[in-house]
This record gives sequence, structure tokens and C-alpha cells, in this order.
Amino acid sequence: VAIEIPDVVIDRLPVYARALAALESEGREVVNSQELGERLGVTPAQIRKDLSYFGRFGKQGRGYNVGRLHQELRQILGLTHEWPMVLVGVGQLGRAVLGYGGFGPQGFRIIDAFDSDPKTVGTKLSGLEVKSVEMLPESLRRSKVEIAIVAVPGANAQSVIDILVANGVKAILNYAPVAVHAPKDVRIKEIDPVLALQSMTFYVKMLQGPSK
Amino acid sequence: VAIEIPDVVIDRLPVYARALAALESEGREVVNSQELGERLGVTPAQIRKDLSYFGRFGKQGRGYNVGRLHQELRQILGLTHEWPMVLVGVGQLGRAVLGYGGFGPQGFRIIDAFDSDPKTVGTKLSGLEVKSVEMLPESLRRSKVEIAIVAVPGANAQSVIDILVANGVKAILNYAPVAVHAPKDVRIKEIDPVLALQSMTFYVKMLQGPSK
Repeated sequence: VAIEIPDVVIDRLPVYARALAALESEGREVVNSQELGERLGVTPAQIRKDLSYFGRFGKQGRGYNVGRLHQELRQILGLTHEWPMVLVGVGQLGRAVLGYGGFGPQGFRIIDAFDSDPKTVGTKLSGLEVKSVEMLPESLRRSKVEIAIVAVPGANAQSVIDILVANGVKAILNYAPVAVHAPKDVRIKEIDPVLALQSMTFYVKMLQGPSK
Repeated sequence: VAIEIPDVVIDRLPVYARALAALESEGREVVNSQELGERLGVTPAQIRKDLSYFGRFGKQGRGYNVGRLHQELRQILGLTHEWPMVLVGVGQLGRAVLGYGGFGPQGFRIIDAFDSDPKTVGTKLSGLEVKSVEMLPESLRRSKVEIAIVAVPGANAQSVIDILVANGVKAILNYAPVAVHAPKDVRIKEIDPVLALQSMTFYVKMLQGPSK
């Protein structure tokens, strides 16, 4: 890809794809950027600009073909095949991740789960036998899995991520509430509800006025 | 506040605060923007620019006083007092949210949990007796809670959010995997691991080259 596409644009594409999937399930065949923007709380101009990075979609004044645009976005994002994933850390948080029903229907499947606690290793959770984290490097080299979910305590997150990166993982969903690092060609996304809450309290406090 | 502070700046402040808390717990007294930037994978210039919206911190060439900057950021973000929250939806996802140990230490406390399932209402989960969602409006008017967590199925999310907004909620953490709307003065943050994964597959696919 010769053109540099901003990360924020890539971050928005799955949101567009999700809205198109909803429209498709409602039986809609055409949508314009105005309506799509209203559904998503963004401007129609932003949608048109974001999509323009990837070519021409839709005809002037006619809107987008819902099914076709949805399929194109899935193609662009690499969502037309299943992605196997590994999960590291099956404490309380990891168990919730394992039991989460939202991954499978979207083509993301946890094929292996690892933990360091001898009491947890060998137990069966959500249909997977938990493996020892000592087996992680060998297992990754064999399976060539490129996506990992990290749900270990903060203190262990970086060392786990180093092992993942050294064994071919290219995308990491990090649930550990710490800043972690990886080489430039490895993507990390953090899921931290506390950070999300803390950026909203700023605005709630402003609404309350200067007294509080 | 007269100056318009970009949302992305506000989003980064909790990340800075978290790094400062870590430095504080390591016994560090001073840090410069260079080191802070390296820890967080951002440029020192960005840190200085973000902080400049809120006044002058630190002295040229001397770095920041870790404890003081941490405290100032907590003040700015409104984190110096506890925030009560309500949770709507205690299915599998809601239960994981209820059991999540990360909120309390950061001053966020779920004081009420609501569900629509008669089998769930009245049961005790993580120390809270689940209330009927029919009691939500009255309960919110009485408690004046301003933060809510939504963990209901996607199809019910918007109607729950409408009730929350109509009864004074100003910040919503949405776990339902759908785009939802609220008036301009209400903040919504979405926690959706699938969206995060879908924006990373784009890059993993690129690394794999054009053949796949």
C-alpha cells in the first residue's frame, strides 16, 4: 500500500462495517453517507473521506449499496476468513474473555488458553484445556497464531508480550491495566474500562460547575 | 473553561496519570517528558503540548515532580473523589463487569445493578441485590448517580440509554456491541473488543502480503 492511511481511519472502518451489517439485517439495500453518519454520530463528509482512501464506493447522489460496501470493508479489514487467537491469563478476567460470546460470530476464535497457576493448568474452561504458559513459545511456533489476548496481572504483562512478539504474534488485545511496548510492526490495542471512565469524569465534573 | 481542549487530549490524560502512579509506586520523584514518552510510546513534544492546555507544569530542563503532576491530573480529571455508578444488565457480561476488581481501587463503585430477567432480579451478585430495571428511573432520580455501565443485549441498549439520559446520567460506558446515541452533553465510551480486533487485522493482513 503506497498511500499512508491514518490509524484513526482504520479504527473507524469496523464501526462502519458494523453499522452496515445492522442495515443488511434490516433488509436495507441502499444507504447514503447522511443516514450512515446520523446512525454513527459522525459527519457524512468524514465517512466519504474515510472511504475515499480505498477507492470509489457508491454513485453521486445514489448512496452506497449496503451489501457490497459491507463486503468491501470486510475484505479491506481482512475479515473474510477466520482468525485463530490465543489467550494468556485465565484468572477472573481471562475467564470472562473465554466465556465472551461476541468473538465467534465475528470470526475470532480462541484456540488455546495459557496460565501460570498450576491449579488452573489442565482444567477445562469453555471447552479448552488450559495449558501451562511454559508451553506458549513452542505452541505459537507450531500454530503460527498471529493474534493474542493478554489478561494477566499488570506486573506480568510486558514479559508475556515479549514472549508473544518473539514467537510471531502481530496483534495483541491487552486487558492488563498497564502501558506495554512492542516493536513497530506489532499492533497493540488496550481494553481498559477504567481509562474510559476517567476520560469521561472530566466532562461530568465540568457540567457540575466550578463548585465541586 | 474558555479554551477548547480536544477530546483526544482528555483521552490521553488518564494514561499519563496511570504512568505517574506507577512511577510514584516505584519511589520516583522526578520524571521528564522524554522518559514519560518512552514509557508510553508517545513523543515528549506531545506530552508537553497536552499538558500545556492546563497551565505550566515542571521547570525547563528539570522535569516534572511525579507526585505533584499526578495529583494535578487527578484534580483535572475529577478523580479526587469517589464516583458511584449503576450497572444495567447482569447477564454473563454484566456479571464479569460486577466482578471486575479494577474499578474500586480507582474510585469507581457500582452501587446498584439492574436487570429485566425475573429470574435474576432479587439475586445477590458481588454483594449487590439485583433490582428490576423497572425501578431504574426512580432509583436514578433518588441517587443522582451520573455514571452508568450498560451491559444489556445490543437490541435493548438504546432504550436503556434513553432512560439513563432522561434521569440525569451524564457518562455511559457501553459494553453493548451497537452504535448508540445520546444528547451532546452526555458522554458515551464504548468497550468492544471485537472492534479493537477488527482494526488490527487490517495491519496483520498487510504484513502477510498481497497473496492472502
